[in-house]
This record gives sequence, structure tokens and C-alpha cells, in this order.
Amino acid sequence: MLVIMELDRTREEAEAVINQIEDLGYKAHPIYGDRQTVIGVTSNTGTVGEGKLRQMKGVEKVVRVSQPFKLVGREFHPENTRFNVSGVEIGPDTFTVMAGPCSVESEDQTVRIAKAVKAGGGDMLRGGAYKPRTSPYSFQGLGEDGLKILATAREETGLPVITEVMDARTLDTVCKYADMLQIGTRNMQNYDLLKEIGKAGKPVMLKRGYASTIDEWLLAAEYIMDAGTKEVLLCERGLRGFDKYTRNTLDLNAVPVVQKLTHLPILVDPSHGTGYTYLVAPMARAALAAGANAMMVEVHDKPEEALSDGQQALLPTQFAELMQQLRAIAPVLGKKMAGVKSAAA
Amino acid sequence: MLVIMELDRTREEAEAVINQIEDLGYKAHPIYGDRQTVIGVTSNTGTVGEGKLRQMKGVEKVVRVSQPFKLVGREFHPENTRFNVSGVEIGPDTFTVMAGPCSVESEDQTVRIAKAVKAGGGDMLRGGAYKPRTSPYSFQGLGEDGLKILATAREETGLPVITEVMDARTLDTVCKYADMLQIGTRNMQNYDLLKEIGKAGKPVMLKRGYASTIDEWLLAAEYIMDAGTKEVLLCERGLRGFDKYTRNTLDLNAVPVVQKLTHLPILVDPSHGTGYTYLVAPMARAALAAGANAMMVEVHDKPEEALSDGQQALLPTQFAELMQQLRAIAPVLGKKMAGVKSAAA
Amino acid sequence: MLVIMELDRTREEAEAVINQIEDLGYKAHPIYGDRQTVIGVTSNTGTVGEGKLRQMKGVEKVVRVSQPFKLVGREFHPENTRFNVSGVEIGPDTFTVMAGPCSVESEDQTVRIAKAVKAGGGDMLRGGAYKPRTSPYSFQGLGEDGLKILATAREETGLPVITEVMDARTLDTVCKYADMLQIGTRNMQNYDLLKEIGKAGKPVMLKRGYASTIDEWLLAAEYIMDAGTKEVLLCERGLRGFDKYTRNTLDLNAVPVVQKLTHLPILVDPSHGTGYTYLVAPMARAALAAGANAMMVEVHDKPEEALSDGQQALLPTQFAELMQQLRAIAPVLGKKMAGVKSAAA
Amino acid sequence: MLVIMELDRTREEAEAVINQIEDLGYKAHPIYGDRQTVIGVTSNTGTVGEGKLRQMKGVEKVVRVSQPFKLVGREFHPENTRFNVSGVEIGPDTFTVMAGPCSVESEDQTVRIAKAVKAGGGDMLRGGAYKPRTSPYSFQGLGEDGLKILATAREETGLPVITEVMDARTLDTVCKYADMLQIGTRNMQNYDLLKEIGKAGKPVMLKRGYASTIDEWLLAAEYIMDAGTKEVLLCERGLRGFDKYTRNTLDLNAVPVVQKLTHLPILVDPSHGTGYTYLVAPMARAALAAGANAMMVEVHDKPEEALSDGQQALLPTQFAELMQQLRAIAPVLGKKMAGVKSAAA
Repeated sequence: MLVIMELDRTREEAEAVINQIEDLGYKAHPIYGDRQTVIGVTSNTGTVGEGKLRQMKGVEKVVRVSQPFKLVGREFHPENTRFNVSGVEIGPDTFTVMAGPCSVESEDQTVRIAKAVKAGGGDMLRGGAYKPRTSPYSFQGLGEDGLKILATAREETGLPVITEVMDARTLDTVCKYADMLQIGTRNMQNYDLLKEIGKAGKPVMLKRGYASTIDEWLLAAEYIMDAGTKEVLLCERGLRGFDKYTRNTLDLNAVPVVQKLTHLPILVDPSHGTGYTYLVAPMARAALAAGANAMMVEVHDKPEEALSDGQQALLPTQFAELMQQLRAIAPVLGKKMAGVKSAAA
Repeated sequence: MLVIMELDRTREEAEAVINQIEDLGYKAHPIYGDRQTVIGVTSNTGTVGEGKLRQMKGVEKVVRVSQPFKLVGREFHPENTRFNVSGVEIGPDTFTVMAGPCSVESEDQTVRIAKAVKAGGGDMLRGGAYKPRTSPYSFQGLGEDGLKILATAREETGLPVITEVMDARTLDTVCKYADMLQIGTRNMQNYDLLKEIGKAGKPVMLKRGYASTIDEWLLAAEYIMDAGTKEVLLCERGLRGFDKYTRNTLDLNAVPVVQKLTHLPILVDPSHGTGYTYLVAPMARAALAAGANAMMVEVHDKPEEALSDGQQALLPTQFAELMQQLRAIAPVLGKKMAGVKSAAA
Repeated sequence: MLVIMELDRTREEAEAVINQIEDLGYKAHPIYGDRQTVIGVTSNTGTVGEGKLRQMKGVEKVVRVSQPFKLVGREFHPENTRFNVSGVEIGPDTFTVMAGPCSVESEDQTVRIAKAVKAGGGDMLRGGAYKPRTSPYSFQGLGEDGLKILATAREETGLPVITEVMDARTLDTVCKYADMLQIGTRNMQNYDLLKEIGKAGKPVMLKRGYASTIDEWLLAAEYIMDAGTKEVLLCERGLRGFDKYTRNTLDLNAVPVVQKLTHLPILVDPSHGTGYTYLVAPMARAALAAGANAMMVEVHDKPEEALSDGQQALLPTQFAELMQQLRAIAPVLGKKMAGVKSAAA
Repeated sequence: MLVIMELDRTREEAEAVINQIEDLGYKAHPIYGDRQTVIGVTSNTGTVGEGKLRQMKGVEKVVRVSQPFKLVGREFHPENTRFNVSGVEIGPDTFTVMAGPCSVESEDQTVRIAKAVKAGGGDMLRGGAYKPRTSPYSFQGLGEDGLKILATAREETGLPVITEVMDARTLDTVCKYADMLQIGTRNMQNYDLLKEIGKAGKPVMLKRGYASTIDEWLLAAEYIMDAGTKEVLLCERGLRGFDKYTRNTLDLNAVPVVQKLTHLPILVDPSHGTGYTYLVAPMARAALAAGANAMMVEVHDKPEEALSDGQQALLPTQFAELMQQLRAIAPVLGKKMAGVKSAAA
């Protein structure tokens, strides 16, 4: 930590700060410039002291040098995390594909689309049973009935299931059916939920809040890891932007940034990340080329009848075509398409 | 609703869309331009149809004309909402002041600060017992012990208490102690929580998500009203910005915008909204001058010892000085400072 | 300047950086932590060294401690700047009002509106003769004819004139007619123009770029001051936002932030800053209450006939009413309304 | 154009608007809903009428249906534009690579790097002679001396040269040396400059303003085309973001969005777009995979000595490695790497 004094503060004022630093049990290393003093602080742990130092007379600001995340960061865990979800590998050597409808609407719809996902080379089935909707008057999801349908679709296709948890009170129910838990963008900083999910023992995908900094996102992942789960997949799903032509601004820069900071794998969601079907394939290819470990896309065979987000779904034929392009790009990145393997199996 | 066809679509294509509009039970009103057709849709209700229309062949986009919120909007409720919280008025004719520490840290600290708030002319006491913190390693609040301390401070000062609810599972506990419930910026779209809080029968303050549109915010309020609560206070608390000199960009534009769209009152939080003590008083004055109905500020008598956010707290003397300035501005807006009244009492 | 080494770099690597710092003629002050070294750098001037240090092996980042602006900052110029524009005072003790049409459209229109501005208590006349328009097909301004009309309006009302310069090639022409030069938001970083304007010897108002950081803005002002002009007025005019209800997000936080960093006065433009008439008065009052030194508003008596931006103009009656409110608020801020004085004269 | 009336306006008020629409010479098509009227407007041209309609009594808003750009849009020019710059092709079938130092610093430096660019398979040489720098105290470029150096480097390598024009007064000088003109992000809305460059008869690359909407960007291109130049290349170079880990947020979504709206080709600049060397290769690969027509990257063989932006430059070896990856991805997009062809030549 570095304490930066205001301009033209006296040596006595700097020494008062130094004394307080030492009273906190830290070591102080002053650097006296012509008009400004900077004090390095070592042997400090935690963040309580930071607020105190920021309030001291004559202190302009406090600059943290080290990363705020411990379990998520590479400092004590340099190698990339890899894990598998009911047999599907997620990690540095693969590009894992999760696909399916935005919402589970009926058994017929879900099984039909799951088969299309399987046929196209997808690895996992996505589908929402509990839906966070901006309006209270929009379709809110089928709840546990939706979860049962997802389980049926898994039986019929062999695809493991990922689905969203919105509330700690329905977590146990979701765990009965899902292979992987999803935390939505609106709940990224619902800390009580993060703590509960971290105790559930299932792999977790954590969507980035739509205006979260990288640090806030990784600290949300830190909550989950701190609660006990090591198998966390980060998900970039688009930032709040100002342009009318996209619903969100998919931030692919986050892929290499996050990979530098953390050992956790990262998935990209170009469906929510852009909001329009015609943008999904270009951004999915770009996600792989940027080095992402996985992607999640919405597939629907009758998008005009979808109860949510039909305008961003791929048709099964579009999905299959995209998968072919991805398979051609993956080797450049040194990645296997898990889908190819399971198609071969 | 307006359906805008792509350029150079044939009349047959437009008619196919018109047929589908009528199949949905709506009325279609086509306007045929030289190269482009627009179809007005009337007699429609709900939003399900919108997705379907957006997916039809040849449709470029669908533009919603009417507001998506019903209970929150002025359409069926033109007059301003007013209500009182344990005797404190909130509404169009007052400027209500809520103040107190960021976190409840101890009984001594809380009672001491509550008395300073009372002395300065504040109307209500704020203080966090459950704290949503970006890092799992930061102080997480005293929980129910903190609530008990708030109740003690209320007894000693007569100030009603507002405090945050983070989780549906602790809602009943909070309701036992609080006069008004606060929903934090990170939980603005935690819809299950909104629904529960809407059933609790207490007045609610809903903070705007730090990158939420006005529509998303008002629809979150719609969830609460739809669940049964009529006494909702909106809170602007700063948007995610790009500048290093502020922690958030307090968006005072939201005050007159929201007042045009909804009958609900709006409070401004210049403490979180800016992040630095020296910015609080200027922005508090500006909030009142823009027409806000209330403000919430953090006050701490020993900010250098605060367990959270000390760098944005006002000292009791700064708070009292600000209150004097606000009392001088309030009449220009036709507002009484509720605080003056209760100080006189 | 502080050089922060990556984690777990050897002492030899740190010493190599120290040697290079000393080779640049600077002094190095290493602080060795357990796993990380920070090196304070003193006796450095300029920014060339910063890039070099950032590239050295093992360096994670370089943190600048001092402000990058010299003439604009308070470091060597702590007292507030005040100056007058053809008799109108701008500075810490006044709230100066500039008003007029967006574009100069005709002599009749401009003189008519100038008289309304004068009658309402405005201090200066604004009006665009050279107009930066987003579309090449929009009205581009009357050019020198517009300047002549502004000069006529000045003669008729006594109001000094502020108008925009878009191009160094027309600077001399504008200087023949204008009392104060305006640099628009789109030209804030048109550095060749800034340098020329800084040499022109007229007071300058510099609008903030619509997504500029405070530092970028103050450095643009530094260009002007470095070229010779001391009389610079900063103008906050709204940031690019994401909400459909405003054309820009007027950032009043900038007022107190800028006043802490620089001795230059700051004006707020709530017309462009919000984009809609109904938002102008609330945000104008808020600007004054936040401590701004001046405001600029658009006034038009026939907004439905305006060739640009009619939807954000105040009617003369709305302007006069706003001025009355401002006069009531100004004393709270210790400010005279210059307009009151000149109305009395 | 669509005129949307406020709720509950009378039929008389709607008819008054209709009359005014017809007085403007347009056709009005009213749709009367239960509480709200929408009026379609056809036979209108230009945008003057739009402001008038927005000001009419009872009008809530005016929605433009058609695109505001004519020459840039696909409406009258559906096929993709292709052109060549001194023999280098730019268009739908190629991925053109422009590379070189941020600033021209010396003949030795520039020729040395140009040869590395040539060896790696680059198509064109970039380098700044006139530099827009945030601080007036930063290196401002070598001016015409820099242009001469670029011409020398072209002679030695055969690579056509692209360089920035900052000021209409130096345009002729730049045209003497450059093969292609670059307009920087800070000058995207410097309309006088756009008009002059549009008359110069050279191909132009137009960088997107760092917070410009797509429409603003395409309208800036419209200025250039309207002035006479058909050979315009759009350049996405990163948006203002809020995260500390990137200097800008490179917006790859813009690639497919722009390609839908306009026939002009688009280039991506991942160097300025991210600001850090380690992010350049991932985002360059992603740009190609998203379908971009070209890229521009900064290459420097001694980045620690660069006079500007050394921290975002690729070393020649990193550039060559990236080019190999791009050559492997290009066929998936149906694109030839122009670089391969010229390397083969």
C-alpha cells in the first residue's frame, strides 16, 4: 500500500501519518520529495487499515499495490483451473459449447432444441426455468416444472444441464436437477446468494454484471471460492452501452484481461452480449479467436414463438454452421472443440 | 406499438405481417411509404406479441409507444404520491433528510451519531446492519445485533430508522426493527427479493442500479408495487462513470426525468453518489435545487475509524452547516424542510 | 512517480530498474516488500521517462503522483482566476448568465431574442454562426453574416457576445466580432485549433468533450494557457449516457471536482447538457447550487421554427422565471448574479 | 417519420398537428388508439421538419424511421465498396494489415521498423508525423520531416504509407507524401477538416470517436463522401470505458453492425483499442474472426525508447507470430491475407 501525502505538507504531518501506520502494526517507508511525500506501507494485511489511512490529515490518497483477490488470483495459484461437468471438460485446452433456448417453455420445445444442439456438436444444454425479467408482466419461467423438463432433455440427449439460480430459497431444488449452476448478471453482487451457491458443491458459472469492473467480478468469484467451490467459470455477457444498434456491448477485451489475472476459465455469451441474431456468429468466432474457453449461445427452432429473447436466438442450421467455423478456428488457438470429441463418441 | 418494415419489402410481405397482427387479436394500421411500410398496432396488451412481431419476415424493428410501467407511471395515477414513515413526511412538499453512519459499528457510535443527526435537523436515521461489500474480506455488518442498536438509537432520538435488506431470508428480522426498508443498488434487479419486500407492508426505498436505465429502475419499482406496497421512494445514488476523481457519477438529471414519468417521490444519495466528503455538500444542495424530495447522507464523527466508507462521511459540523444551506434553498422550491419542523417540535 | 514491480521479481531485477532510473538522472527510493518492490522516483521532470520505465523488465506499472497540468492547476496558482469580458465579470463571486438562440438565423430573430435575454437579466448573448452539425445535411450556420448579426444584437442590447470557433482558418474573422470565443465539445481535443485560439488574445470558453476525463479537459485548457491566454472558462455540457430520456448526462459532479483541481472558473450548459426544455430549469438551479460560476442556456421565442435544437430552448418567459429562482438561490452560495447588477444599471 | 402524441390528447390537437404536417408539404397518416395517437409522415425529405414537429403542442416525440445517411448507407449502394491504395487492396475479400511505429522518431527507426513490417507480411506502413497528444508537453511529432522519413521508408520497402492529418492547413503537405490519409479519433467530428479531406482525392481512414455512436461515425463518413471521396475506410479503435485494466474498450460488435449498415470497409486498431501489448494479438485475431476487412497495429523494435505509446507496441517477432495466426484464420472467413500475396511477390 502507498500513502500519498498532499503537496507541501510538513515533515511533521508526514511523521504523524508514519506513527499511525506503525500503530496499526505496519512498517512505514517514507520517500520525501521536494514538495510531496509518499509513504510505502508493508507488513499490512486486510483492508481495514486502508480506510483509516485515507482519513488522516494531509493524506491525498492511498494506492493499493497488490490485487484484492486471493483465491481467484494467480498469485498463489498460477496454473489454469480445469474441471469437468458431468463428463464435459472446461479449461485451457478446450472450447466448450453450451446452447439451448433462452427459456424452457415446454417439454416438446426443450427436447427438440436439445437434440438440435446435440446434433450441431454442442456439449451442454442451457435453458432458463427461473427467469429474471425486467418487467413483472413478462414470462417468469416454469420453475421446478422447467427443471424437470431440462432433466428429461438431458436423458434424451446426454447433454449436461446448466440453468440459473435466482434465489437461495430455491437453490436446493435447482441442485436436484442441474449439472452446473448459473448466476445471472443482475445477481452478480447478490452476496448472500453467492455464499449459498459457494456451499452447494456444484460447478458454477458467474455472469459479469452488466457494468461491473473486472475487480468487482473477480471479487464476486472470490465470494464463491471463499464459500467452498473451486469450480467457477466466469461469463462475459456484454456491458451497458450507449449505442442503439446493440442491446449490450460484448466486451471481448475481458477475455485476455481475465486470463492474465485469474486461473479460472472464461466463457463468452454472444447472444445476450449483443442481443441480435445477426451479431451472434461473428462475435462467437471472435470470442474463440480471443482465447475464450467456452461459449453459451441461444438456439431456438421457432424464434418467433419464443417466450423470451427470440430476436437473439440462432436457428439450428445457423448453429450448426457456426460450429463448423469454430472447429476450423480452434486449432489455431491450440484448443480442441469438446463438441467434436463427444460427437465422435 | 409500431412495426417498422425493412426497406423495399413487398406489399405481400407487409400484408403477411398484418395478418399475423390480426391473428394475435390486435388491430393493424398500415402506412405505406415509397420504399418502407410502417404498421401501427392498437388494441394490444402485454408484451408477448412484441417478440413475435419482431421475428416476422421483413420486420426491421418494433417500437413501443406506451410506457411499460402501469402502477408506477402517471398514466393512471397523475397526482404525486405522499406518505409518512413513522411520522416523517415524504412527498412533493418536503425535503426529507436521512442521515447516519454507513455501518452500524457499536451502540455507542450509533447513538452518538444519531444524536448529531437529530441536532443538525435530520428526519430519519440511516445505518447498515447487513452490508453488501465488494470483497468477502471486508466488514459484513453486525446483522441482527446491528438492528437492535438502531432500535436503541431510535428510542434515544425519536428518529425513524431506515436500513438495508439483502436477503429474503432475513426480511422478517429486519421488519421487526426498521421503519423503512432499503434495497441496495446491487439488488435492484434481485426480483425475488423485490417481490418479498413488496409483500412486507413497510415503506421501501429502492436504490437505482449503478448502470440501470430509468425504465429498468421504474420496472423494479413496478415489481414492488405489483406485490402490494404503495409507499415506494426511489433513490438515485450515482452511475458507473469513467473518471478517477469520483467513485460514481451522481445523475441529478434523473430527478426531473423521474418526476415526469412517475408519481413516486425521489431521494438523492450524494455520499455514495460521489464517494468523497468534499463533494457531498455541493451535490446535496444541487439535489434539492433540482427538485428532489429527500436526501440521504452519511455522517460520522470519527470517519478515520469507520469500518466502511469513512472517506465519504460528513462530520456532524459539516452536516449541520449543510442543513443550514438547504433550509435557505428549500423555499425557492416550495418545499418545507421536514427537519426544521421536527427540530421545532 | 512510483514504479511498482511485479510480484516475486528478484532483487537483481529491481536493482536493474533502479540503475536505469538513475541513468535518467532521477533519484530512486526502493521499498522492498515480502514479495513485491516499489520504487519511488524523485527529481524527475517531464513524462518521457515514464514510458521508458513502464517498459522495463519486471515493471508492472508506473503510477504518477503529481498532476499533469501546471498552468491550469492550483499548485502554482492557488487563488481563483477572475476576469471580465467586455465589462461582464466571471469568477468566484458571481454567477454569470449567457443566453440566446442555438443558431443565429436572422437579424430579426437574433435581436428579438437578445432583447428578451437582456430583459430577463442575462449578462451575455450566445448564438452560433458556425455550427458543428452531426449531419452534413443539417443547417451549417450563416458564417460571417451570422457574426455581423451578433454584433448588431450587441449594439442594440449592450450584451457582449460569445460564439463558437470551429476552424483556425476562420478564427480571425470570429475575433473581429466576438467578445469571447467558444470551443465546442467536438473540438475539445482539436489541438491545432486550441493552440491558435490560445494566441488570439480573447477570453475563451472550453467545452468538455462529451466523454472526456477531467484530466483530458484540463490538459486541453493547458494547451490554451500554454499558448498565451489566461482567461479560460471551463464548460460542462453533458456526457454521453445510456438513457433514452436525456440526450446527454449533465455531470454536475464536475463542478466541485474541477474547482478543487484548478483556479479556472466553470460554467454549466444545461441546454445541451440535457437536451430537453423541461430539464433545463431544474439543472440550471442545481448548477448554481453546486457552486458553478456561470451558466449558458438556449432561449428562443419560436422554438418550433428554430433551425437547430428547438426542443431544448427556453421561452423568454421560462428564462425570466428561472432567473428569478436563481437570484433567490445565489446568496446562499455567496454569489452575486451579475445579471441583477446590470439590470439595475 | 412517426409523430407520437402524448396520452389523452384530443382529436383536435392531433388534427392541428396533421394540418401542420400537411403545411410542410408532407402526407399525414393518423392512427387513433384508445388514449394515444400516432401520425405517420411520408413524402418528407430532409430533417428541418423534424424539429418543428417535435415542438408542436401535444407531441411527445418524433421517431425517425429511415437512416440519416445516404451515400454511406446500403440503401442506394448495396454492394460492398472495394478500392486499392497504391496497389494494396481493401475490401470484402481481403484482410489488409497496416503496421508501424506510433510516431515517426527518426529515419533509422522508421526504416528499420518498416522492414520488419514488410518481413512479417504487412501491407502498409503506419506512422505519425503530426501527433495529437493529450498533454501539450508530450512529443508533438516531427511534422513535415516525419513525412519525408515515411516517404523514404516507402521507397525502401514498397509499403504504401498511411499517416494522420490534424489540420486543414497542413493537408496539402501531408498529401504530398501519404498514400492514405488518417483522421484521428479526436477529430472525427472536426467537420471543417472532414470537408477539406473529402476534397483531397486521397483514400481516407476515419477513426471512430472514442464515445461516438455508430450513427455519428457514419455521418462523419457521410461528410467525407459528400465532399467527393468514395474511398473511405472506417476504423474502430476502442471506446471510453470504466475499467482500469484497459485504456479503451475495443468494440468488436461494431464490425458486424457497421457491415450491415454501410458498404464501406472497416479496419480494427487493437493497439489503441486496448492500450497494452499483451492484449493486441488476442484482439487482432478476434477482429479478423468477427469479419473485419483490415487491421492496424503498432510495431516497435525498441518500445522502451518509443516517444509515444511504447506500452502497446508489438515487437517484430510478436508481429510475425500474430501474422501467422491470422493467415490460419483468414480462410475460414473467405478472406485472403493481402500480406501473403505481397510476401509471395
